[in-house]
Amino acid sequence: MHDLHLKNVRPLGAAPCDVLVRDGVIVECGAIAERPGVPVEDGANAILWPGLIDAHTHLDKTTWGMGWHENNRDGVLRSRIDYERENRLALGLDPHRQSMRHAIGLAARGATHIRSHVDIDTTHGLRLVEGVQQTRDKLQGVIDIELVAFPQSGVMCMPGTVELLDAALSNGCEVLGGIDPCGIDRDPKGQLDVIFQLAVKHGVDIDIHLHEPGELGAFTMELIFERVLANGMQGRFAISHAFALGMNDYQRVGRLIEQIAELDIAILTTGAPSATVPSLKRLKEHGVRVGAGCDGIRDTWGPWGQPDMLDRARIIGMKNGMRSDDDLRLLLETVSRGGAEVMRLQDYGVHVGARADFTLLAGETVANAVVEIAPPPLVVKGGRVVARHGVCVVDMP
Amino acid sequence: MHDLHLKNVRPLGAAPCDVLVRDGVIVECGAIAERPGVPVEDGANAILWPGLIDAHTHLDKTTWGMGWHENNRDGVLRSRIDYERENRLALGLDPHRQSMRHAIGLAARGATHIRSHVDIDTTHGLRLVEGVQQTRDKLQGVIDIELVAFPQSGVMCMPGTVELLDAALSNGCEVLGGIDPCGIDRDPKGQLDVIFQLAVKHGVDIDIHLHEPGELGAFTMELIFERVLANGMQGRFAISHAFALGMNDYQRVGRLIEQIAELDIAILTTGAPSATVPSLKRLKEHGVRVGAGCDGIRDTWGPWGQPDMLDRARIIGMKNGMRSDDDLRLLLETVSRGGAEVMRLQDYGVHVGARADFTLLAGETVANAVVEIAPPPLVVKGGRVVARHGVCVVDMP
Repeated sequence: MHDLHLKNVRPLGAAPCDVLVRDGVIVECGAIAERPGVPVEDGANAILWPGLIDAHTHLDKTTWGMGWHENNRDGVLRSRIDYERENRLALGLDPHRQSMRHAIGLAARGATHIRSHVDIDTTHGLRLVEGVQQTRDKLQGVIDIELVAFPQSGVMCMPGTVELLDAALSNGCEVLGGIDPCGIDRDPKGQLDVIFQLAVKHGVDIDIHLHEPGELGAFTMELIFERVLANGMQGRFAISHAFALGMNDYQRVGRLIEQIAELDIAILTTGAPSATVPSLKRLKEHGVRVGAGCDGIRDTWGPWGQPDMLDRARIIGMKNGMRSDDDLRLLLETVSRGGAEVMRLQDYGVHVGARADFTLLAGETVANAVVEIAPPPLVVKGGRVVARHGVCVVDMP
Repeated sequence: MHDLHLKNVRPLGAAPCDVLVRDGVIVECGAIAERPGVPVEDGANAILWPGLIDAHTHLDKTTWGMGWHENNRDGVLRSRIDYERENRLALGLDPHRQSMRHAIGLAARGATHIRSHVDIDTTHGLRLVEGVQQTRDKLQGVIDIELVAFPQSGVMCMPGTVELLDAALSNGCEVLGGIDPCGIDRDPKGQLDVIFQLAVKHGVDIDIHLHEPGELGAFTMELIFERVLANGMQGRFAISHAFALGMNDYQRVGRLIEQIAELDIAILTTGAPSATVPSLKRLKEHGVRVGAGCDGIRDTWGPWGQPDMLDRARIIGMKNGMRSDDDLRLLLETVSRGGAEVMRLQDYGVHVGARADFTLLAGETVANAVVEIAPPPLVVKGGRVVARHGVCVVDMP
């Protein structure tokens, strides 16, 4: 089952060849004769690329496919959080239906893996996680979804949240989240001590939202470095956003990046256009693992975004001032292999022995494929075709 | 000729009505009975919006529709300029064909007016302008094109350029350009004195590229303020890019903006994602005229961009941290009426008496229309349908 003979594709933009998939694994690349019983797809000389990875998103939040959500509220982070928590269900934001729409959209545009933060708070308990877990189950074989237990409303400032995070990690969430220990929680030592303790207890990785800018974010990073070292969590901690690394102090940022590299902390960027963001190239020069994500798309927070990692690559690339063909290749690697490195996926790629999770991309060259506004001609997950020309085999609910 | 009965549209997002166009002018809005001989279009409840305006672009530069242009050269501004000048014709960048592609793309996506800078240099003389002028002639009635005589390679540092600018203004260019008097030309007094003199001689407006950041750009702006005042050019000077207004000094920027407002200098922004850009909302709070443009798209400088003012609105909006419905309306006004104010167009709008240059937009609300990735259902120029669903009546060459 899940065999496939894919003809005439260019792996990573190289010379055209055929690819043979058996039992969901790439077993041969080259000139391949047709095998009886093995379905054939013509790649039409498209670029073959490992499945795109949305390594930072919020499947439970989008209003995609719903009526337009009017928003003339203030832009304070705390207000956004509270408005969403207090109104999301009344607004009809069903976590299962909306996460289906979001995830199917991503799959249709070439993604094969998602890391999704899902809100856990004392208003909803684990209800939002359960909705997204239903989606994960329904989309098995279409797109893999990893869940981060995410205390969007804060940890220490919302008593009862620690117990819910604990329960979520016992019930299917693979990663523990966190959020602005200073800015939101007003108790950096409190939140960080608690989440490290929980992560160690459950043996899970941590992926914390850190919007804190400048020296405030740098301070929180230093608290994180101390605890990664003390708990032996090298290679198992990710900082999402990391806006502090975009601050205008070259030396200070350099010292932070050196420690990030030394502790093998991963960075996840969304290229937030109006914030200070980490330099993708500077992080890569230090060997830091960097993935990328769409973040929230068209939700109660704001109207922007698409369920589309190529669209996100463009946003990140423009923000980072990337222009050259080499830059564009790095960008495409970040929205694919970068996410795999953060999520520590096994057998990821388009080499023999890799899982057959890949997408075809339209474009003369790899760089061209990044800027071309065109849906992927074909998306394959575990050897099975899951989308063609931007349309997923699973209908949006 | 050019009569049209447009049924069921929502002018500026208001309640639905019909619109009657006679001789290319809007003559009635309301409930309108069908008139014999007047062609009818069903607007299907779409939003009726004045034609979008790309008020800062380079029609002569794009590689759109050509083979992929590989670019692993350095990113120094002077290098980009020199590479392009020395290689553009050999690369097959035919100014007429490429400007046709670019302008048709814009028209297909709702634009009815363009202000295009066109390179004038001692290598090409007026040849590039002539190519774009052919396009302007061919697209008469489809999209209006205003030409800026643009000394891309510099003025003082390229002897012979002043005479060419003079000739261009005598031969169909309506506006005089300029470029980084310090950064590129290394002679701010020299360039500014010359271009003001030329503008006064020909009675034309000036629209200068100013990439100079921080205090350097602020210094150049002060030299500009002095000359606008001395030459009585209030209301007739535009600064494109104005990156210095994005510098991190609130008070200093405030004083610059006050002078810009007082001298009625216009600002044109492209929302350059990796640069410091002016705050759109702060400029508007001071009553400054602000238009927007796509700038170069997919050219020898870089791979980004689309011939699409809604795409550009999204880039500008994200960069400016705009999220609310009110913000999104301001954004849409900037890529339409904002450009008209900079170009000082007459009879622009969707009111009775306005020229019938408009587009329909898909979306439940105005804000929705900005973020929806959908081609305009219908574009009308002078009462004539020029595009439907992203396809222009004129084929791309």
